[in-house]
Amino acid sequence: MFVHTVFFWLKHPENQDNHKALRAGLESLKGVKEISAAYIGTPAETRRPVIDHSYDFSLTFVFADKAAHDAYQVHPVHLEFVAECQHLWERVQVYDAVS
Amino acid sequence: MFVHTVFFWLKHPENQDNHKALRAGLESLKGVKEISAAYIGTPAETRRPVIDHSYDFSLTFVFADKAAHDAYQVHPVHLEFVAECQHLWERVQVYDAVS
Repeated sequence: MFVHTVFFWLKHPENQDNHKALRAGLESLKGVKEISAAYIGTPAETRRPVIDHSYDFSLTFVFADKAAHDAYQVHPVHLEFVAECQHLWERVQVYDAVS
Repeated sequence: MFVHTVFFWLKHPENQDNHKALRAGLESLKGVKEISAAYIGTPAETRRPVIDHSYDFSLTFVFADKAAHDAYQVHPVHLEFVAECQHLWERVQVYDAVS
C-alpha cells in the first residue's frame, strides 16, 4: 500500500470562509477513484509534547500502490483542487510511505 | 474516525539490526484489536520540496473513535512496544486527526 499524508496550515486560520472552502476542496478529492481509503481530518484533542496539533486540516489517502498515487497526482480533480485552493494555505507538509 | 500518524527517526539509521527491531515492534502493534486499519511504512521514492522523507518508519493507525485510540495508548502490547523499542529512536513526531 501507499499512504499519502498531507497537513495544511491556512494562511488565515481565523477566517471561517477559508476553512469551509478548503474543507470543500479536500472533500472533492474523495471522488478520485484511485483512492482506496480517504480520511480528511482536523486536529484531535490529544496533547503531548510529541504531538503536532498546529495544522488546520489533514488528509490521509491510501492507495493500492505508487502507480495509483501517481495517477491521483495528475487527476483533473486533484489539479482543480490545487488551482482553486492553493491560495488558502500558507504551508503544506507531505509524507509518503510505502508498506 | 480517528487517524493516529507517527513518524520515527532511528538513533542509528545505519544499523540494520535496529531497523529490524523497530519494524518487528511496530508490526506487533497490529495485534491490538482496537485498531480498525493499520499501515506500517517506510519513505516512498517521491521527492518534492514539500515532502519530508527523512524519517525511517511511519505508522498510520485508524480507529473508530478517540475512545478506541485511548484504549490503544494504554494497551499492554503498546506499552511493551514503547518499553522495548524507545531506545531505538531519536525522535518521534505524532499527528492525531479526527474526521
